[in-house]
Amino acid sequence: MDVAEFRRRGKEMVDYVADYMETIEQRQVYPDVEPGYLRHLIPTEAPLEPETYEDVIKDVERVIMPGAASPACTELETVMLDWLGKMLQLPDDFLAGTHGHGGGVIQSTASEATLMSLLAARCKAVRLVQASDPQSSEADIMSKLVAYTSDQAHSSVERAGLIGGVRMKKVPTDDSYAIKGATLKKMLEEDKAAGLIPFYLCATLGTTPSCAFDHITELGPMCNAEKIWMHIDAAYAGSAFICPEFRPLLNGIEFADSFNLNPHKWLLVNFDCSTMWVKKRSDIIGAFKMDPLYLTHENQESGLVTDYRHWQIPLGRRFRSLKMWFVFRMYGLKGLQAHIRKQVGLAKEFESLVRADKRFEICAEVIMGLVCFRLKGSNELNEALLKKINHGRRIHLVPCQLSGRFVLRFAVCARTTESHHIQEAWRHITQLTFELLQEPAH
Amino acid sequence: MDVAEFRRRGKEMVDYVADYMETIEQRQVYPDVEPGYLRHLIPTEAPLEPETYEDVIKDVERVIMPGAASPACTELETVMLDWLGKMLQLPDDFLAGTHGHGGGVIQSTASEATLMSLLAARCKAVRLVQASDPQSSEADIMSKLVAYTSDQAHSSVERAGLIGGVRMKKVPTDDSYAIKGATLKKMLEEDKAAGLIPFYLCATLGTTPSCAFDHITELGPMCNAEKIWMHIDAAYAGSAFICPEFRPLLNGIEFADSFNLNPHKWLLVNFDCSTMWVKKRSDIIGAFKMDPLYLTHENQESGLVTDYRHWQIPLGRRFRSLKMWFVFRMYGLKGLQAHIRKQVGLAKEFESLVRADKRFEICAEVIMGLVCFRLKGSNELNEALLKKINHGRRIHLVPCQLSGRFVLRFAVCARTTESHHIQEAWRHITQLTFELLQEPAH
Repeated sequence: MDVAEFRRRGKEMVDYVADYMETIEQRQVYPDVEPGYLRHLIPTEAPLEPETYEDVIKDVERVIMPGAASPACTELETVMLDWLGKMLQLPDDFLAGTHGHGGGVIQSTASEATLMSLLAARCKAVRLVQASDPQSSEADIMSKLVAYTSDQAHSSVERAGLIGGVRMKKVPTDDSYAIKGATLKKMLEEDKAAGLIPFYLCATLGTTPSCAFDHITELGPMCNAEKIWMHIDAAYAGSAFICPEFRPLLNGIEFADSFNLNPHKWLLVNFDCSTMWVKKRSDIIGAFKMDPLYLTHENQESGLVTDYRHWQIPLGRRFRSLKMWFVFRMYGLKGLQAHIRKQVGLAKEFESLVRADKRFEICAEVIMGLVCFRLKGSNELNEALLKKINHGRRIHLVPCQLSGRFVLRFAVCARTTESHHIQEAWRHITQLTFELLQEPAH
Repeated sequence: MDVAEFRRRGKEMVDYVADYMETIEQRQVYPDVEPGYLRHLIPTEAPLEPETYEDVIKDVERVIMPGAASPACTELETVMLDWLGKMLQLPDDFLAGTHGHGGGVIQSTASEATLMSLLAARCKAVRLVQASDPQSSEADIMSKLVAYTSDQAHSSVERAGLIGGVRMKKVPTDDSYAIKGATLKKMLEEDKAAGLIPFYLCATLGTTPSCAFDHITELGPMCNAEKIWMHIDAAYAGSAFICPEFRPLLNGIEFADSFNLNPHKWLLVNFDCSTMWVKKRSDIIGAFKMDPLYLTHENQESGLVTDYRHWQIPLGRRFRSLKMWFVFRMYGLKGLQAHIRKQVGLAKEFESLVRADKRFEICAEVIMGLVCFRLKGSNELNEALLKKINHGRRIHLVPCQLSGRFVLRFAVCARTTESHHIQEAWRHITQLTFELLQEPAH
């Protein structure tokens, strides 16, 4: 949708909302629909080709309005998570509309998805130990639980451990900044020998510092054998798995208990929208289920109704699946794939520019839209360059540390980024580098 | 703003967004402003009288745009929480723009505010015990911690205890469904004698079932003396404290460590917007602070910058303070007070209708917009009436249990509710009651 169409459609939408407000008293307070009504009204998969805005807005009246805010909000979310799960070729176990026990939910952020998975795993682990040893107290078991994650994992993973009150160990990574099976295996052996209880691994596909990919085909079977919950955090890179050429990076997902990616990062859906799937709904629902009378409803025992309040920290929810529905239909799978490919291409373009300049080095393999680079030389030099770049206020870079080296990160992610932006950014960086290297201090 | 103005303003806003998109490349990537820039550009308090939409939108260009999304998002939030804090006459300790150590933050829901306060209290309690007994392990301390809340508290409070991995005890309530000081005192004595460590109380002002108010002037001094964190959950009723006649219900707030209300419930701000204040910022920030390199910024050690990511579970944030700014200015304090008073008046109107019908009884004092009532008679009879009402789909009621009795709850909260809706609702209920009492089963 270009800006001109946005102006037209936006104004139509304002009228739609105003008309709704003016006629609200003619509408039913409570909808007539039966649980599961929505799934049958829309296709089982996202379209391959883009649809028009008219197509979508017509369906708002046909599909959403009869189900009002609730249950339409929940039901569209369940189906949208199935749509996206299918685009990602997730195993059927993770989908709600199958005979499996899984399904997806929208969390606000990956931090919350990680926390929910850790809490569900903690609850499951405590119950498992108590099943064989009914005398052991929850506090005693919790004092022995160990969670694992990469030393490259996002800080929110360590924070989830602190919130959950469990020990979190950082697994050292290999030369490509990823966890190998053998490294985890050794830690598990040592910890079990010391009387600890390994219960959770948060593996990362696309780490924040360098977009590294943990070896989940090695880690997964080990976790399954040891009854360790494997959560996969693919907050950024996960969106790329809708492209067949990137999908192999997700191999091993079949061993995972839960999986998360943020369509608000790289799939053209506005913040916030963090999508999470679990293989067994009962694991996450069972952890902290509360059913006071004021939250009870007639259909809850039928098994037909999804109560997302059990899947998350907050109680209230927003209708975030609507934006997924609009984006998926107006781009189509092909349009979304084209977006990912274009952005990876732009990152590769930036990479070539860096590689062609002998003063610079690339610090990690460029797989997605992130380029980790630095001036050959001291950390101080690179810190000075970053400062110059960010003080220039024309582009903004966020740094990281890789193997003790201070590294600059060039991230392509805005919808409107084009080749000329990449070229301009590089010209700007090389100009500032020239200036920096002239300064007496260097 | 009436519907006609909404149509006009909504369309202007669509153009504003489109213009922004079209000229985005002419804007700076990173703003020039210094930390704290925003506070000096706007008044220190919400206006008493309504302002016009033009006044507000002009300020968006003057105040927000120079600060872009960040830091404007954070800075406006800090000031809006001060505005609302002043409307509520919170002690200065809770405000950020004073010489105190407190401040406010927007959480998504009261569930998250409760959880954050419990986690901060847990962290503080563990550190306190370890300060006098460095040998004691966190797990051991956690196994002795006890949190308290009313047997009428919202289920999210109990859930926060489960998530935090601490014991939560329900304090029995008095005839008005509120916690008395003496009842808590007795429990504290017993628990301490048993070797437990009381560390947290979640008091409620305006409980979900009956809108009861815990006696915080009795509970507060006790908590302070025992170093128990007192959190006050006023999710619903808190908005009413902006009216002087309801403010006495908040007396005792000076003893609290944290306080929460949901402007999205009753202060005309759209979902989600749950406002939370703490007396000591460092308590909540210190609990789970993480500063990886990619989240580090130049100003963070200056003390001038608020990093809300340390105050909440998610990392990412939305610009929710904008809607508070618009609502507070377009209604003015007087307009907001008028809204609260009108809705309480409508609840009182419904109460009189119930009281005038001898077949019914009122089950709890009507203080705010909630009326708890029932047919004199069995729980089965009242369950049948509720079913009839909700199946009618013209109004929707949510029940509760009070002293073992099944009770219907009539809640006034929509912005557009008028006296004729109350009258119609009551006519409808009495008609269904008439039908129900004709049925052979009764």
